[in-house]
Amino acid sequence: MSVIIAIDAMGGDKAPFVTIEGIALALKKHPSVKFKVFGLSESVPEELEKHNLSGHENIEFIPCSEVVKGNTEPRLAIRKFKDSSMRRAIEAVSRKEADAVVSAGNTGAYMVLSKLILKTIPGLQRAAISTLLPTKNGKGVVMLDLGGNVDVPAEVLVQFCIMGQAFAKGVQGNKNPTVALLNIGSEELKGTASLKEAQQMIQTTNAVSNYKGFVEGDDIFEEKVDVIVTDGFTGNIALKTIEGTVRFFSGIMKEELKRSWITKIGALISKPAFMGLKKRLDPRRYNGAQFLGLQGISVKSHGGTDGFGFSHALGVAIDLAENNVNASLERELEALQEKLIIAESSAGLE
Amino acid sequence: MSVIIAIDAMGGDKAPFVTIEGIALALKKHPSVKFKVFGLSESVPEELEKHNLSGHENIEFIPCSEVVKGNTEPRLAIRKFKDSSMRRAIEAVSRKEADAVVSAGNTGAYMVLSKLILKTIPGLQRAAISTLLPTKNGKGVVMLDLGGNVDVPAEVLVQFCIMGQAFAKGVQGNKNPTVALLNIGSEELKGTASLKEAQQMIQTTNAVSNYKGFVEGDDIFEEKVDVIVTDGFTGNIALKTIEGTVRFFSGIMKEELKRSWITKIGALISKPAFMGLKKRLDPRRYNGAQFLGLQGISVKSHGGTDGFGFSHALGVAIDLAENNVNASLERELEALQEKLIIAESSAGLE
Repeated sequence: MSVIIAIDAMGGDKAPFVTIEGIALALKKHPSVKFKVFGLSESVPEELEKHNLSGHENIEFIPCSEVVKGNTEPRLAIRKFKDSSMRRAIEAVSRKEADAVVSAGNTGAYMVLSKLILKTIPGLQRAAISTLLPTKNGKGVVMLDLGGNVDVPAEVLVQFCIMGQAFAKGVQGNKNPTVALLNIGSEELKGTASLKEAQQMIQTTNAVSNYKGFVEGDDIFEEKVDVIVTDGFTGNIALKTIEGTVRFFSGIMKEELKRSWITKIGALISKPAFMGLKKRLDPRRYNGAQFLGLQGISVKSHGGTDGFGFSHALGVAIDLAENNVNASLERELEALQEKLIIAESSAGLE
Repeated sequence: MSVIIAIDAMGGDKAPFVTIEGIALALKKHPSVKFKVFGLSESVPEELEKHNLSGHENIEFIPCSEVVKGNTEPRLAIRKFKDSSMRRAIEAVSRKEADAVVSAGNTGAYMVLSKLILKTIPGLQRAAISTLLPTKNGKGVVMLDLGGNVDVPAEVLVQFCIMGQAFAKGVQGNKNPTVALLNIGSEELKGTASLKEAQQMIQTTNAVSNYKGFVEGDDIFEEKVDVIVTDGFTGNIALKTIEGTVRFFSGIMKEELKRSWITKIGALISKPAFMGLKKRLDPRRYNGAQFLGLQGISVKSHGGTDGFGFSHALGVAIDLAENNVNASLERELEALQEKLIIAESSAGLE
């Protein structure tokens, strides 16, 4: 059965130019997938026409009258903008008219609207944001939470482990992903109280299959595990620190290569290597973060990406929908809940 | 007046070979500084001889009978090893026979021994570890805490700001360093409760001069501020993530440059650029972290560094001692305490 992806064609810095180009690219790679395209009548049909997608059997255009802008406050996006492309694309998933939704628009608004409309999975305390990061041999590592959940209790960290594994199963086709908690040492005594409690909870209840203990910040790219779980504060600091370090390192490298005509010539000759480096670290190839823990698949594309990058975010949504990850996630979280309750009550009996 | 530095000559992977080489290098740069060298009679005099330092008027060798090893448990280092080079070098500072102590040995043991012997500054809740990191234009940024303090309350974060500024004054000769708290957004509403409370505390009491608000992970190398403060958990994650990212990025770059004979030739021609890059990011040039908040200057060198790196850690100790940073830090922390108490009591009166 072919999956159906709902798209907020108006989200992102250069919408709908980038979003429609992304759809055209994704359609070439996934010719059986159907796309429901939500956007303004004055711009979307024109872009579809440019890519020969007008009247294409896999494309359905649904006109909307409003757009949630980049600076729209999330609470306004909830109360107003009822006919926005963002809201209506999310609603298509809640109405089972689509299997996943993708937007490159206002992150805050998209997150609250996704939560409001799709609702969190019963028994789940918090939704999280998860994404794939490049690693040294190209396998990639799933990291969560990047959604700013601060002060995360142990039980939620355990849920995040299950959620991250579901994401890895979906986007990497990894049947049995390994998972670790991010900490400041691999010894059991280190770290915050919730980290220690979470590890103990996992070990005593056997609630997370393939749990590998603690990893540290310098293990992120080493492919020691498939999924790395942390709270949203630490995850954001780590992700931004990675971005800053890459920018810093490549900035200094460029400066040094431009320092003399000799180094410039060398750099010119080595150009294929720098192109290879760029390709392997290309953030567009890792574009597409999932709002995990909702009763529907909601994928966020970076707002500043191009058509190639947006097509990758669509690819993430397609993979997650085709692998039907959310249905199994709900079952697994229910099983986790049972295990934790049993462990708690038997601990109480002692 | 020339300063006196006490050195644990037996600490580090290749001690005393590396430590004595470091002293020889530091002495060339700081000819008036005096060094008290603590170590075993069977190896240290021999190394001093190699560098023509035997009987040098600036060098005093103090024989000890024990060595705290890399795997010695901190609590054992406290109870036993009373005549270790590490302990006796620290004691030289507590007895006012030296202005600062430097060791490249067992971090945990060195930290607990430093705290035990030198004691924390009165009124200070926690000691912290601070170091200098490279930045894009070479100015460097002071970061703390890297010492693993988890669950840090607001008041301690405020103290860390003052402590980080003291370190910046010492090692950068920066008279009026700016400081920021590391957070997941520059808006006031983001982050943990202690971060928000710390910022409010600073703003209402004016307790920290030159406070610049929140910065994010990708600002670390941007020279937006001179000092970045965070709790020890986040600081460790950020530091290790930086290390991991640099290793990952340079690993991929090397792989790509070795992929064909053409790129290899280009890399050979560009070699001065890669040497320049290496030099600017050389961790040896940023070696030397301070245990901040103790009643004495205690500097930790990386255990795996070489003589050049160890001489830099000695340089940090010399700068801190010459600028007499600890004395002014005690006064500033006292003033901070007063301001916080006044603010608290006037808030209570409202």
